Amino acid sequence: MREQLLAVEKIRAIEWRDGALYLLDQRLLPHRQSWLRLDTVAEVVDAIRDRAVQGAPAVGIAGAYGVVLAARARLQAGGDWCEALEADFACLEQLRPATVNLYWALQHLRERLVRLKDGDDALALLEFVALGIHASDREANLTMAQLGMELIRRHQGNAQVLLTHGNAGALATGGFGTALGVVRAAHLEGLIERVYVDETRPWLQGARLTAWELAADGVPVSVNADAAAAHLMKVKGITWAVVGAERIAANGDVINAIGTYQLAVNAMHHGVRLMVVAPSSSIDMNLENGEDLLFEECEGDELLEVAGHRVAADVHAVNPSYDVTPADLVDYIVTEKGVVERPDSAKLAQLMCRKRLH
Amino acid sequence: MREQLLAVEKIRAIEWRDGALYLLDQRLLPHRQSWLRLDTVAEVVDAIRDRAVQGAPAVGIAGAYGVVLAARARLQAGGDWCEALEADFACLEQLRPATVNLYWALQHLRERLVRLKDGDDALALLEFVALGIHASDREANLTMAQLGMELIRRHQGNAQVLLTHGNAGALATGGFGTALGVVRAAHLEGLIERVYVDETRPWLQGARLTAWELAADGVPVSVNADAAAAHLMKVKGITWAVVGAERIAANGDVINAIGTYQLAVNAMHHGVRLMVVAPSSSIDMNLENGEDLLFEECEGDELLEVAGHRVAADVHAVNPSYDVTPADLVDYIVTEKGVVERPDSAKLAQLMCRKRLH
Repeated sequence: MREQLLAVEKIRAIEWRDGALYLLDQRLLPHRQSWLRLDTVAEVVDAIRDRAVQGAPAVGIAGAYGVVLAARARLQAGGDWCEALEADFACLEQLRPATVNLYWALQHLRERLVRLKDGDDALALLEFVALGIHASDREANLTMAQLGMELIRRHQGNAQVLLTHGNAGALATGGFGTALGVVRAAHLEGLIERVYVDETRPWLQGARLTAWELAADGVPVSVNADAAAAHLMKVKGITWAVVGAERIAANGDVINAIGTYQLAVNAMHHGVRLMVVAPSSSIDMNLENGEDLLFEECEGDELLEVAGHRVAADVHAVNPSYDVTPADLVDYIVTEKGVVERPDSAKLAQLMCRKRLH
Repeated sequence: MREQLLAVEKIRAIEWRDGALYLLDQRLLPHRQSWLRLDTVAEVVDAIRDRAVQGAPAVGIAGAYGVVLAARARLQAGGDWCEALEADFACLEQLRPATVNLYWALQHLRERLVRLKDGDDALALLEFVALGIHASDREANLTMAQLGMELIRRHQGNAQVLLTHGNAGALATGGFGTALGVVRAAHLEGLIERVYVDETRPWLQGARLTAWELAADGVPVSVNADAAAAHLMKVKGITWAVVGAERIAANGDVINAIGTYQLAVNAMHHGVRLMVVAPSSSIDMNLENGEDLLFEECEGDELLEVAGHRVAADVHAVNPSYDVTPADLVDYIVTEKGVVERPDSAKLAQLMCRKRLH
């Protein structure tokens, strides 16, 4: 499966080349494929903040390369560059409070920094760590794709109708996608009849990004209004809802793009299995449960405008970015460390004690 | 309550004046308040088909006036005008298969036609029937507003947080609205803390029309993404979901704008009461249950484009207009004939045998 997936790979949204970070600008997709070249950490901060890059694993990887760019500038400036670099870490860290992958990636770089010895090529070593984070995310995607596909095969064995929400694809990760990695692997194995994609308001990641990715891979795909998901579950024979995660709490609660919780409630009501696919770097063992998290609410204008056009009445908008899906609505969490069925604190603790980078 | 509601009425979207039908064009709201003047049945057909007028009761009323305009033209043309008028009835009838109010209104006019006697002023009599349908819808709105408000007062007695979906307001009826009539009455009685409004993709009736109506009346209102409704139920203390209906089957199944079913499932999961507000003209005793209905699916472009701008990838879209909420997810159906708690076939049959025009 690994080789098959690598053979058909079409989209790589993050590249590190000639000492610069290249990002496929998600804001312009699907209309235009435009690459950003980022040479400074300030540019990386802007790209994350302005959502040129989205998706927890992708943001973590971009952040890691951002530290490399920052270190290069600080080294060139001379003085106590390690001390100065702390400001760059802090700047990156505060960008996405819900995204534990970003903390996780920065922590890996910090740990390498404190082990530096005199005479080490600090920049080369940090670059090595960042490349490692990127490469291991790609490998994690491949492993999860296989594990998730096998779950579908085990339960049904023939082509199924799936539904997904948000974008948990190549654009959101270092490689093949989390949820969409599973879809890609299942498609290669003949296990996909059709994938319904929630358009995922207000940012339309589903209609813009997920639909584009799946169509590019030849997966039969239909976009639907978010509010049509329950109706489709009833009339279209959907058997699996497959989504990614922005963050997973120690008890298995899943924080993800707004609407995931609503989807989970409907999946349970319809006997549709819910599979959450995320690398272990998205699991935050310090967060006891999802309800403990304070959420950012985005600007209401995101909701009241579409493509720069005011579509709504001039009223207040409530626009939460994320919601929490309680663990008891989740059938499977698929990570590169293994699969957890009906997640709880004990099962996640057992999963996470297995020692691997990813 | 009746007098209080009449005293604060701000929006009337349908008017019959100087032998012409005036409609507030819903396609241009909330940006522009533009009135269409319709002098022929062909113009009425266009307005219904192109959704200048939406909402089952409003479509029924517009259809009734359309027959008056058609009869005027047929009478002027001479010959067997009653026979010729059948073509106009047929043309109106096929416009909105899910909208039983339209059949109901046309049926009232047909029944008057067959009772015509020589020497009758046919046009004046038909106009009288159409005006009666319009006036009785307004009266039905007022009665339902009171009945629905009293349900909220009976259950809680103090200000509540509500959620609604679609537009079931003044714009969708001959007067004060079905669901929004209840909201208006409850607001006058101090029973509304805030109303959350699903934006209601793809047509954005919530964001464009419902939010505009409620803001105009000074009701505290917030627009949210459809997929955020479950999260809001969990965190905002919502106690009631109040919606209209395009059609209600004899067993209490509710056909309404896509997303109503999803909302109902989430309401049940969160212990939020679901109140469906619709005149008895929306109840179709010939439709045994909602699942028997074949649904129109709208053009996918409605979903893939917003305000004329392509927002999605170039893929297939599935875009059902309506869904079916099974009666067992409905707590109350509020009609002008009375309130049905936990609807079923027997209770609806009992409700409908009470003889009144509305």
